[in-house]
Amino acid sequence: MILTFMGTAGSGKTTLTREFGRYLEENGHRVAYVNLDTGVRHIPYNPSLDVRENVTAWEIMEEGYGPNGAIVESYDKLLPHVEFYIDTILRLNEENDYILLDTPGQMETFLFHEFGVRLMENLPEPLAAYLFSPDILKKPYDFCFVKFFSLMIDLRLGTTTVPVLSKVDTVRDIERYRRYLEDTDYLTAKLKLDPSTQGLLAYKLCSMLPELTPPTRVVYVSAKTRDGFDELETLAYEHYCTCGDLT
Amino acid sequence: MILTFMGTAGSGKTTLTREFGRYLEENGHRVAYVNLDTGVRHIPYNPSLDVRENVTAWEIMEEGYGPNGAIVESYDKLLPHVEFYIDTILRLNEENDYILLDTPGQMETFLFHEFGVRLMENLPEPLAAYLFSPDILKKPYDFCFVKFFSLMIDLRLGTTTVPVLSKVDTVRDIERYRRYLEDTDYLTAKLKLDPSTQGLLAYKLCSMLPELTPPTRVVYVSAKTRDGFDELETLAYEHYCTCGDLT
Repeated sequence: MILTFMGTAGSGKTTLTREFGRYLEENGHRVAYVNLDTGVRHIPYNPSLDVRENVTAWEIMEEGYGPNGAIVESYDKLLPHVEFYIDTILRLNEENDYILLDTPGQMETFLFHEFGVRLMENLPEPLAAYLFSPDILKKPYDFCFVKFFSLMIDLRLGTTTVPVLSKVDTVRDIERYRRYLEDTDYLTAKLKLDPSTQGLLAYKLCSMLPELTPPTRVVYVSAKTRDGFDELETLAYEHYCTCGDLT
Repeated sequence: MILTFMGTAGSGKTTLTREFGRYLEENGHRVAYVNLDTGVRHIPYNPSLDVRENVTAWEIMEEGYGPNGAIVESYDKLLPHVEFYIDTILRLNEENDYILLDTPGQMETFLFHEFGVRLMENLPEPLAAYLFSPDILKKPYDFCFVKFFSLMIDLRLGTTTVPVLSKVDTVRDIERYRRYLEDTDYLTAKLKLDPSTQGLLAYKLCSMLPELTPPTRVVYVSAKTRDGFDELETLAYEHYCTCGDLT
């Protein structure tokens, strides 16, 4: 089973990869870790496959690139090796129960670069956890944004993407988040009260959600308290072993 | 008039900012340039406002951060100064005909960080040009992706976002791109023939486009040949001077 952690820099991908991996190992599973981030300095797990063995963003920066250019250039350099990464991940998948893929720090590197697109499209029934932290959810339309962003990942990479609210240990009123993220009628009703252009667009988008996708499960995790780890495990199991119905 | 150039690293924001600015200056307009990218090494225009005077990504990297962490950290450091940037941009806007905002190399820095959200939400009727290059458009559902990504920018930042295909000088069959990007019925019909999950999702999404937004103009530009510059100028003029109807 291959589980891909995606999300913006700071959403908690790498920490969750380590902690969730440890949790699986403690429960007797064989786990392999894959680092796909050319720009990460230290990783807190022992990767079976690491793109930094091929190229790092900072060695490219030494050639005079700024950090953004260096990141893009590093994936340009990885692209000719994409088949190697796909093959190695598939082999690791045969030898282990779980493969955890830790993706580039900046999500768009993966979403827009051909390296990410080719890699994901060649994995069997890829499952992605789209991590976002509570601090980006301020207004009702922000909840609509993350729900659609999750669909954008599906659309771009051919994944089944599960929205995952990370760092829930930092949140007081988790029920408020749950309601906005899971009860589309409630969210839509709230959006209807917002006369801004953002509110109006979000209202239209969210009104269409039921036609676009069956109600998707949202997972609430904390790498600190291990909240939601059992649900994440169940979800991967159900996706790969019981036909991908994550409703 | 404030025009914001957004797009992933490599989509051509900085080069277009310079060339479009030059074009406007040659036509007698007063133009001010604003650099919002903490990670860019060299910029080919003379900025009136530059976030690097406050903080750069590489000085944070010297403290031991990787490039992704450094980029996020640099915007954390800019956030307390966001009012200064808003005020300065508004003042520049009074003194000039055009303000060109060149945004962070990685688009998500702007889209997900509170610095970008607060800045854009406080500009009057912000107009954004969402740049994407032809190389990300391979399959019909990729065209659906960029159309929705443009809406995601509107949703997150409260902008009016115009999709801009950049680097059109590198494209042979521009008519194919035009048809996919502008003729929603054509795109939807093509998507209906794609039985993949991506194709199906794209078909559903694109079928809803007419209800979501009036047909948006797409601009086709080349910073090399100056193709599309007149249209970009007209578009900014129409947005700010004739009530924002960009259909």
